[in-house]
Amino acid sequence: MKKPYVIGVDMGGTNTVFGIVDAEGKILASDSIKTAVPVLEDYIEQFYNAVTKLIKEAGVEGQIQGIGIGAPNANYFTGAIEAGVNLPWPTPIPLAKIIEEKFKLPVAITNDANAAAMGEMTYGVARGMKDFIMITLGTGVGSGIVIDGKVVYGHDGFAGELGHVLVRRENGRMCGCGRCGCLEAYCSATGVARTAREYLVSSTEPSILREMPSEKITSKDVYDAAVKGDKIAKDVFDFTGTMLGEALADFTVFSSPSAFVLFGGLTKAGELLLKPLREAMDRNMIKMFRGKVQILLSELKESDAAVLGASALGWEAKFSD
Amino acid sequence: MKKPYVIGVDMGGTNTVFGIVDAEGKILASDSIKTAVPVLEDYIEQFYNAVTKLIKEAGVEGQIQGIGIGAPNANYFTGAIEAGVNLPWPTPIPLAKIIEEKFKLPVAITNDANAAAMGEMTYGVARGMKDFIMITLGTGVGSGIVIDGKVVYGHDGFAGELGHVLVRRENGRMCGCGRCGCLEAYCSATGVARTAREYLVSSTEPSILREMPSEKITSKDVYDAAVKGDKIAKDVFDFTGTMLGEALADFTVFSSPSAFVLFGGLTKAGELLLKPLREAMDRNMIKMFRGKVQILLSELKESDAAVLGASALGWEAKFSD
Repeated sequence: MKKPYVIGVDMGGTNTVFGIVDAEGKILASDSIKTAVPVLEDYIEQFYNAVTKLIKEAGVEGQIQGIGIGAPNANYFTGAIEAGVNLPWPTPIPLAKIIEEKFKLPVAITNDANAAAMGEMTYGVARGMKDFIMITLGTGVGSGIVIDGKVVYGHDGFAGELGHVLVRRENGRMCGCGRCGCLEAYCSATGVARTAREYLVSSTEPSILREMPSEKITSKDVYDAAVKGDKIAKDVFDFTGTMLGEALADFTVFSSPSAFVLFGGLTKAGELLLKPLREAMDRNMIKMFRGKVQILLSELKESDAAVLGASALGWEAKFSD
Repeated sequence: MKKPYVIGVDMGGTNTVFGIVDAEGKILASDSIKTAVPVLEDYIEQFYNAVTKLIKEAGVEGQIQGIGIGAPNANYFTGAIEAGVNLPWPTPIPLAKIIEEKFKLPVAITNDANAAAMGEMTYGVARGMKDFIMITLGTGVGSGIVIDGKVVYGHDGFAGELGHVLVRRENGRMCGCGRCGCLEAYCSATGVARTAREYLVSSTEPSILREMPSEKITSKDVYDAAVKGDKIAKDVFDFTGTMLGEALADFTVFSSPSAFVLFGGLTKAGELLLKPLREAMDRNMIKMFRGKVQILLSELKESDAAVLGASALGWEAKFSD
């Protein structure tokens, strides 16, 4: 029989946030520590002490089923954080094994977008859904693909990088990955700000956004301007929604999901983003899938979602061999 | 215990080919009937008689595990052939149920490309592989996606239509699906012939292909010319391989397959197609996947592949409820 609680851990470059979560997705208690501890062993010790304290205070000692961790470049198969991340320790970091030995609890790790998909499937809007694709619209564009009730990890544990599908093969924007034309370069929060800066240069249309230094414009500024009826700001969301809708139509032919679940700051733009998105998706969708695919917004509170998503992994975590 | 043989059926618009297949993928015996029988019941009767005769002649009565059928627009989940196909009967056709009741054997159906993927996984070059993508390069471009050892069907049974990913969003070629810029419009046999016709018009380069009426050029003609060193014909394969390689790089971020398995007439072009394909795939691949994904050619004989692929479904077929 499963124990009634799991620990969810959201490990970011700056902070590590963790919480005790029940089967309904309620966070009983949560806390955080700084991630940037120079020596890994010290970080693990601080993490262990803080989590143990939280468990004790909540009075749930011995009632934890497992620990789920969402971390950048975390590989579900190997349990390790692989190279190329903004963390202070040498990679690969065999994180699952280290935490498992420390806590004597089974541990599963994955990246943030896959954890988000698990969270939606376990506690959120995708409960009971067997085929959906989670799209996280934050600083970057992440994705977690669920097929037949399971997150797709691929042969190496790194499947589901839909932010790096090329949506513009000619004159594409430079992406952080070193290539040009990735979806992430357009449909992330930073992509929105870039589009705004481009539009301000290429047009003479008056805009509230001209009142601030161009390099300081954020996606939030563009949203605020659009809500006030600013033409350029609205055009930016039209463009962003259209790009994303076109991409989602293409993703559909791959796994034929019943829904895309959108999460992240950009979704606050609501219909400013969703109307052009749905129109573009429909226009670009091959007939056999048209009208079949829902666009859903995450129902998880943004501040809780990362911990909840990670915690969802804890229910299925198994001890390593 | 499983019985030692399955029946594989390749149901095309013109002919229905079927064979008795063993666990190693050997075809013991095969035969065919015409598909274009005006009344469905008559067709089923003819099919039943022909298959029963084949089983009897091969001396394997009572030793058939199940029947697998590859057919256009065949839905694995519903067991039906859905609308929009070139068959003489009203759709949907509850084919699996009809055949099951006739033969008293479990029946599974799927489309040709998914059947091909099953065939490669069961008897071919993808044996033992858990994550790969089958790409069929024929008159059209089909695909069968295998994740964690299972063909991806999606929420409605129609996943894996990678021939209809848009690879050119601007000035894309008209595709048979009614949209413009699909992979299939470029990287199919008909796509190759179209590219040749375009190149012959847009260039003044001498070419063997100018000796025949432009509208009669086939991909085979382009291949023959390329083998003889014809510059335009070689450029056509360069273009086709590059387009396909770019697309495969994009597909990789979805499911992170360990290989793409290519099948169909176009693969006969060998390095003419594969060299530019590998180069473009490598050039367009995001760093985390570079060098990890194999390009394999099907090892199944083209004349047998459709029956073998369909037969592979027969091993797992179950009686409907």
